[in-house]
Amino acid sequence: MKIAVLPGDGIGPEIVGEAVRVLEALKRDGLPVETETALIGGAAVDACGDPLPDATLEITRQADAVLLGAVGGPKYDVLPREQRPERGLLRIRKALNVFSNLRPAILYPELAAASSLKPEIVSGLDIMIVRELVGDIYFGEPRGIEVRNGERVGFNTMIYSESEIRRIAHSAFRIAMKRGKRLCSVDKMNVLEATQLWRDVVIEVSAEYPEVELSHMLVDNAAMQLVRNPKQFDVMVTGNMFGDILSDAASMLTGSIGMLPSASLDANGKGLFEPIHGSAPDIAGKGVANPLATILSVAMMLRYSFDRSAEADRIENAVKKVLASGLRTADIYQPGTEKVGTRQMGDAVIAAL
Amino acid sequence: MKIAVLPGDGIGPEIVGEAVRVLEALKRDGLPVETETALIGGAAVDACGDPLPDATLEITRQADAVLLGAVGGPKYDVLPREQRPERGLLRIRKALNVFSNLRPAILYPELAAASSLKPEIVSGLDIMIVRELVGDIYFGEPRGIEVRNGERVGFNTMIYSESEIRRIAHSAFRIAMKRGKRLCSVDKMNVLEATQLWRDVVIEVSAEYPEVELSHMLVDNAAMQLVRNPKQFDVMVTGNMFGDILSDAASMLTGSIGMLPSASLDANGKGLFEPIHGSAPDIAGKGVANPLATILSVAMMLRYSFDRSAEADRIENAVKKVLASGLRTADIYQPGTEKVGTRQMGDAVIAAL
Ligand SMILES: CC(C)[C@H](C(=O)O)[C@@H](O)C(=O)O
Ligand SMILES: CC(C)[C@H](C(=O)O)[C@@H](O)C(=O)O
Repeated sequence: MKIAVLPGDGIGPEIVGEAVRVLEALKRDGLPVETETALIGGAAVDACGDPLPDATLEITRQADAVLLGAVGGPKYDVLPREQRPERGLLRIRKALNVFSNLRPAILYPELAAASSLKPEIVSGLDIMIVRELVGDIYFGEPRGIEVRNGERVGFNTMIYSESEIRRIAHSAFRIAMKRGKRLCSVDKMNVLEATQLWRDVVIEVSAEYPEVELSHMLVDNAAMQLVRNPKQFDVMVTGNMFGDILSDAASMLTGSIGMLPSASLDANGKGLFEPIHGSAPDIAGKGVANPLATILSVAMMLRYSFDRSAEADRIENAVKKVLASGLRTADIYQPGTEKVGTRQMGDAVIAAL
Repeated sequence: MKIAVLPGDGIGPEIVGEAVRVLEALKRDGLPVETETALIGGAAVDACGDPLPDATLEITRQADAVLLGAVGGPKYDVLPREQRPERGLLRIRKALNVFSNLRPAILYPELAAASSLKPEIVSGLDIMIVRELVGDIYFGEPRGIEVRNGERVGFNTMIYSESEIRRIAHSAFRIAMKRGKRLCSVDKMNVLEATQLWRDVVIEVSAEYPEVELSHMLVDNAAMQLVRNPKQFDVMVTGNMFGDILSDAASMLTGSIGMLPSASLDANGKGLFEPIHGSAPDIAGKGVANPLATILSVAMMLRYSFDRSAEADRIENAVKKVLASGLRTADIYQPGTEKVGTRQMGDAVIAAL
């Protein structure tokens, strides 16, 4: 099991550091894992002017899975588009063809109070959002800013082909089969032809999954329903752009995005694993960031890329135990619990393994 | 004051009926108002095969303002795209060039319990979302579904020109000047060139409004912040597509979308006024729909198209009085209040005028 480790920017190195320590603890118990670290994002721009250097790409290509921290920071916002840290992220997703982005929104009972929603609305919340990650308006051509009729015009192309929709639909149906067997596909078919095709193809694919109850929802309504009654959902599947918005809204329902991991998988189960939160430059280097989302991303890696459910369960149970014991990083701290730093949180998870 | 009245489908005729009765009550008090009714949506398709007949367009062109109910229903979903009720809505927006869509999200204290969010998160909520309504991927060309390399491909074009962004930005800044003087512009400039131009032009326009505090937020973060802490916002401005999603999420924060009106204005203040909720085919014809969003849309019409703040205030105060008196339609009913139908609610507002 070769894992490429890409700490990135901001709190990235700190939180990835703890996740790697968890991997090393499992290695001592016999997990055959090797890691190799490489640069991405602003750190890579600083070192060699490119947010995704060839060397990094090569290391991730050789690896069986990639663990990523986070990218970006205010100092890079002034750079030209091609050098911004986010471009490194978008390019690695595309290069590795990790088209299926799994973003669970789970409410941990111990952290229920952190949600801005009423407890009865979110208690027990467990949604899986499946977001297409390497197509849509993120990558569509033509795109750009140019002068037409004497004024600037900015344009992008939302585009999906049948085969792109088909593979993400299969991915979502398979996940629904392993969960509550309910899949809600989100589109804007009443306005956008690209998503009319999306709906048509999802319906075609559904014929192969007769056990899964398929429903469709318009994206504006989906945004409302996530606020109104999120527990109506089991698995949701949608395109890259809508998925970006809806998955962030869904994760915020839990009130603790410092807890949420993500997996981005290619057709063979090779994947890129990262916390859903950002690089939090304001608290970088202070040792106070929450490493749990990254540690839980390692659990997703073991489950989805290496078929190691037992070890994945061990990590997830260790995290639950640590939460039950009352330890909290600053982002999830509440009166009556014990505030700890990044390193102590990592220590606690390793001890609980 | 010539008002074109377009009841539309589902509960449209019932709720518009009450709003027109409110207008008639004001007419008895001296408001110089004339109304003319016309077909739109499914009702127009049934009558003449076109969701926006020429006759309707002509009537709305002659009018000083348009009052619309709602369009759509399951029986029309099987029609070809050009005949669907939603096309009538999109076409009238474009034909009247009502580019500035104002969607307030206000929490009525009496209805606070209906929100799925904790009271402290939403009490006193009063956001104005300004959504560009006649551009973006809704209308961008090229668009369609075609076969390329042996498979179907669906595509749409997100496009904004400098002048389109400039006029909606001015509209939003002017509204911010009349409110809390804080404007948050929402884009996805880290990925989409169309919204990079959006941000650039909004910043240019801001030079003319030095008193307004301008901020920028990425759309995924905006969706999160609306859930986490919506009261941080005063006025938000964004494009048609993001505005569709965010304004629906924002209105659901209040828990009572049956209460929320909207205004869509052209450059001269002529406008299209409609409730933000849909045609609710499931309860159509039963006399139970909530007419308050439509009645409040009349208040917005008086304020924005006719500069009649006094009458607008009268309507808004009447609605508040009725709520305070405990009357509720089924959608906002709670134990301890009195459930009434559409007509009784209209009667109560007229009595409270
Ligand atoms: C950083 C940005 C390009 C990225 C995206 O929009 O995909 C992020 O928001 C995410 O969701 O991973
Ligand atoms: C009915 C539909 C075309 C419309 C839109 O997407 O604009 C609606 O959702 C709205 O927000 O008014």
